Formats: sequence, C-alpha cells, structure tokens
Amino acid sequence: MRIPTLEWIGEIPGRLRLIDQTLLPGEYRQIECERVEEVWEAIKKLRVRGAPAIGCAGAFGVVIGVQNLTDERGRFFEALEETTAYLATSRPTAVNLFWALERMRKLAHALHSAPVEEVKRALLKEARSILEEDYELCRRIGENGAKLLPNKCTVITHCNAGALATSGYGTALGVIYSAHEQGKQIKVFADETRPLLQGARLTCWELREAGIETTLICDNMAGTVLRQGLVDCAIVGADRIARNGDTANKIGTYGLAVLAKEHNVPFYVAAPYSTLDLSIASGEEIPIEERDRAEIAKCRWCGKALAPGGIIIYNPAFDVTPAEYITGIITERGVIHKPTEEKIRALHGEA
Amino acid sequence: MRIPTLEWIGEIPGRLRLIDQTLLPGEYRQIECERVEEVWEAIKKLRVRGAPAIGCAGAFGVVIGVQNLTDERGRFFEALEETTAYLATSRPTAVNLFWALERMRKLAHALHSAPVEEVKRALLKEARSILEEDYELCRRIGENGAKLLPNKCTVITHCNAGALATSGYGTALGVIYSAHEQGKQIKVFADETRPLLQGARLTCWELREAGIETTLICDNMAGTVLRQGLVDCAIVGADRIARNGDTANKIGTYGLAVLAKEHNVPFYVAAPYSTLDLSIASGEEIPIEERDRAEIAKCRWCGKALAPGGIIIYNPAFDVTPAEYITGIITERGVIHKPTEEKIRALHGEA
Repeated sequence: MRIPTLEWIGEIPGRLRLIDQTLLPGEYRQIECERVEEVWEAIKKLRVRGAPAIGCAGAFGVVIGVQNLTDERGRFFEALEETTAYLATSRPTAVNLFWALERMRKLAHALHSAPVEEVKRALLKEARSILEEDYELCRRIGENGAKLLPNKCTVITHCNAGALATSGYGTALGVIYSAHEQGKQIKVFADETRPLLQGARLTCWELREAGIETTLICDNMAGTVLRQGLVDCAIVGADRIARNGDTANKIGTYGLAVLAKEHNVPFYVAAPYSTLDLSIASGEEIPIEERDRAEIAKCRWCGKALAPGGIIIYNPAFDVTPAEYITGIITERGVIHKPTEEKIRALHGEA
Repeated sequence: MRIPTLEWIGEIPGRLRLIDQTLLPGEYRQIECERVEEVWEAIKKLRVRGAPAIGCAGAFGVVIGVQNLTDERGRFFEALEETTAYLATSRPTAVNLFWALERMRKLAHALHSAPVEEVKRALLKEARSILEEDYELCRRIGENGAKLLPNKCTVITHCNAGALATSGYGTALGVIYSAHEQGKQIKVFADETRPLLQGARLTCWELREAGIETTLICDNMAGTVLRQGLVDCAIVGADRIARNGDTANKIGTYGLAVLAKEHNVPFYVAAPYSTLDLSIASGEEIPIEERDRAEIAKCRWCGKALAPGGIIIYNPAFDVTPAEYITGIITERGVIHKPTEEKIRALHGEA
C-alpha cells in the first residue's frame, strides 16, 4: 500500500508532483510544482494537506526555492531564509512544516562553506530522506497501532490521516492498513468532516482503494453509532501535540473524543514523533487557524449559498483535545498510554 | 413575529399555501397544494418540515383529501380513512403528524351522521384550530422558556425548531424570540445541521429576520465553542418524546447533549405537549427514519459527488437523547425539570 501523494521528478532542477486532493474523489489528477509560489499555493489551497505531507511538501519547496540560484553564496543563503520564511506562512498549525523547514535550514547552514551546487544536492537528498523516513515511520506507527486492535474491530476516524495526508501510507489509517494487512477484520466509520469533507472525499476514497469496508456518516452521527455500540475504538491523526499530550487536530476531533469517553471507547491519536512539540506546555498555546467563511457558507463546487448573508460564521480549522481524553498516542517509537509530560519527554529521550 | 409557514387560502374547496423551505435561504417562494399528493410530497421532500408544521400540514391535507367528494357518506368516510393513512406514510418519526391526523379522524367520526358538507366545514375549522393552537402554544412555550434565560445569554441550537418548523413562531427559537422580545440580550450559535443544513439555511435565515445576532458553525465545532465557554445553554426542539423523557430529534442532537453535559451547560428541549407520546416507554421504541444516501453523497444543488462510489452510507435522520442528558423539557403547560415518567404523566394530568 503506497499512494503517490508526493514525488520528486528529476534531479536538480526538478519538480514536485502532487495528487491534487481538492479534485478527489471525482477526479484523480497529479500536478507539478516548479516554482516555490506553486508549492505555497498547493499547501494553502489544500491540494496537499495533512501535517506529514505538508512537511514533505515544505522540504521539497525549499529545494525548489533555491535550485535555480547561481553560485553566489551570500544570495543563496539569503534566498534560503526567504524561502523557508515564506513557506512557513502557508499554514499556521502544522508543526511538521516548521520542523521540516528547520531541518532543511540547519542542513544548509552546516554546509555553509561548501559549494552551492553541493548544498543544493544535499538539500534534495534531505527532502527525499524526509519523505522516505515518513513512509517508514508510518509503517512503524501502523505496526505499533495494529497491536492495539482486536482481530475483529470497527474503527471510527475523523478527517483524513491517511496515505494522502502523509508520504503514502498514513498514520491513523496506517494503523488500519497494517491491521488489515495482518489479516484482521477491520471495518471503518468515516466522519465526513465538514466543511472540507476530507473524510468523505479522501478517507473513503483511499479505504475503498485498499478494499476496507467503509461506512460514511455525517459528523453529527458519530454519537449515534457510538451509542448503538457499533464502534470498538476511535483513531485520529494530529497536527500538533503539546508536551502534556494535548492534541490539535481537525475541527471535530475534540467532540469525537468526548463522545468516545462517554461510551468507554478507546480514543487513539496516531502521529509521528515530530508532531510532538516540546516547546509548547499545553494545548492552550497552540495557535488555531481560522479559515474563510465561504467554506461553510457556499457550496465549494457550484457556489450555491448554504446560509443567508448578514450572519457571523466561525470557521476554526482545528480544535484541541486535552490529554485526559486520549487513551494512547501511537508513534513510530511506541505507544504512549495515558499521555503525560513525563511519558512524552521519555519518548524523546529527555526524561 | 409570525412567519407564514402555512396558510389556508379560501374556504371549501381551498388550498394550502406553504413556504417552500427547500429553496431557502436563496429564494423565498410560496407554493400552493390543491391535491393530497402535493401535500404528501411537500412533507416527504421537506418543503414543509418540523414536527408541529408537519402536523398542521397533515390536518389541512385531510381537508384537501375530502373537500371535493360528493355527498355519498360511505365513500366520504372511506376516503377520509385512505387520506389519513396515506398522509401518515409521508414521514415516520414525527408524532405530531399522527396526532393531528387522529384528531381529524375523531372529529369526523363524531359527526358521522351529519351531512357531508357540514363534516367538511368542521374539518377545516379543526385544521385551522390546530394551526392557531400551535401558534398560541409556541408563544406560551416561548414565555415559559424565556424565564430560564438570564438577561444576557448565548444559546446554541441544532437544526430548525423555529417559526418555519411550526405555525410561525417556533419552539426552541420561540424561547429565543420571547426572551429577545422581553429585551434580553440573546445571541445564538446555530449548528449547520448536516446533511440538509436546516440550521444554516433556515435557522440563520429566520434569526436574521428577527434581528438576533447569530453565528453559524459546522456541527463538529459545537465542542469547541462549548469548551471555549462561549455558550450559556443549549435549546433544541423534539420530534417525539417517550414517556420517560427520552427525546427523538434531528440527528446530532444527542452528540450536542453529551457535549453540553461535559461542559455543565444546561440542555433544554422545547416542544408542544403533543410531542409527548405516552404510548412509548423509552427512546428505544421510537422508529428512526433513514433517508437516502444521496443526501450525504452529493451536493444537493449541483449533484457533485462528495464521496466515492463503492462505500456504505448511513443516514439516520434522527437520534434519541436519553432523559438523563436533558435539564428540562419546556412545554406550553410548563417546564419539566429533570424529566421522569412520573413528572411527564403529571403534566398530562395522568399522575
């Protein structure tokens, strides 16, 4: 199971090929970015989305931003700074983006006295490593998470923390794919995830591709299926996790966590360790992106008004689920059961 | 405040004029029904919706079903039975519909030996009474509920239990209108209410008409606004209430009730006493309508696929909120705090 969410085409100069996720499920089309503005736009407009995939796109975006520069070293490093700062403005919540950009910056600065062409090659190698490391760690997240699932299990998930949100395998859905590959009987309830319908459009699409029985529901039906006893556990992704375990993820995750707790259903967060942001003490410090009112007020395809004018529309893209609602955080380094700051620091080798 | 949700035009024969709610908020258009099939279709297709309004439409539907019959008494009563049985198949969950149809049937049978023309006139008078009684009782629900709200208060509501769901004033929104008319500072968060967006399309429209500050959110954002402390209480309508207080209402109501409880926010149900169905012991006995998968899978206006083919779609139109989540049921006869079977029977004068 690997979906070509992101691919680098060529060497230097090369281009970043992406599945345009705004067109799914109706159309499967790949686009190619050759200018850093195109990468920025692809992230901003959610053509590529999901924290790990955004991190990968950002890394390749740095390569694109500097790959055509000539040999003048001062200008090269100036452009590198501009490019990373610019790409960081595309989405404010995903820590993986900042992590990947910083990793690219650090690598370049470590090679400060090397020829510019060598730095470029090293940057491309680094971006490719970020992509492949993500794929490998998603596989490990999947393996670690699959152990938590019984042989017959129905999972509810929210938004898309799948192959399309990562380098091609997924975090929350990686757990499902891994269990499925092991021969476990896994069924999934997918929240549609308003307003952008990543659950309906993307999660349902990739689960169907993987041959996993999937039932789509509106977000407000999760309570009913939980109450009916149809669900054994919830697994979601994460955009940023504070050092106390508070987790920012797609809007609606918190509501699902409250419902899971009310029905004594385990609630798991699956994410790479780079999602853990030790610089942030709790979820209160995580900035939450507010997106345009039109996402809620209009049909994205035909522009039909879904709400009257003259009202306020509130459109936060993420919410924060406090650690006490989280049964476990599944990472490539292992599972943190009942997450606390102490356990999270231990995972980082800092305790 | 009175919106002409339903009006009878003329005498006998006459016609039922309805606001076509499927066109709101983009277009305000009234339609007229002259045949019982048109009334059935208007209910089925949600041109008129909301339990009390459906009850009123059903009552006028009975008049339409028999108003052109000649004087032969046997055929008249046969047609009356056929009409009521037929109209009862339009929507399965709203008890008000069955209640109103039964009231019309009983009245006709009480006049069994009267001339047919007299029975017709009595039926029209009865349907008009059902409409006017609904308006008056919504005003009383509003007054009873408004006493529960502080002078400055932000309410969250789900779906549309407003003027458009009733004879023109509303139950849950009637409480808000009444408090607003009393000079209280009321603000509202309106859940958009997928899949049919009654909150976005209808609740926001009528609250704006009434000059009440309204913020539209997606259903999955309720947890966030509750957690942020932005909401003082929740008020919703009801489609059917079992004698133990379990309440069937629009899908998503249960999830909102769980979230309200989690944040210690009072959760009120506002409904006419006819919504109380003493024949049903608990919510488990309430049949839940499942609607078409296309409501979730496609854009209602442009037909754009929002989900891939080859997956299951579950689309229950209602859910059941157990009584223990309900702070109070607001009726025209008073407020039942912490509802129990004993208190509900007392309201019916049966204890």
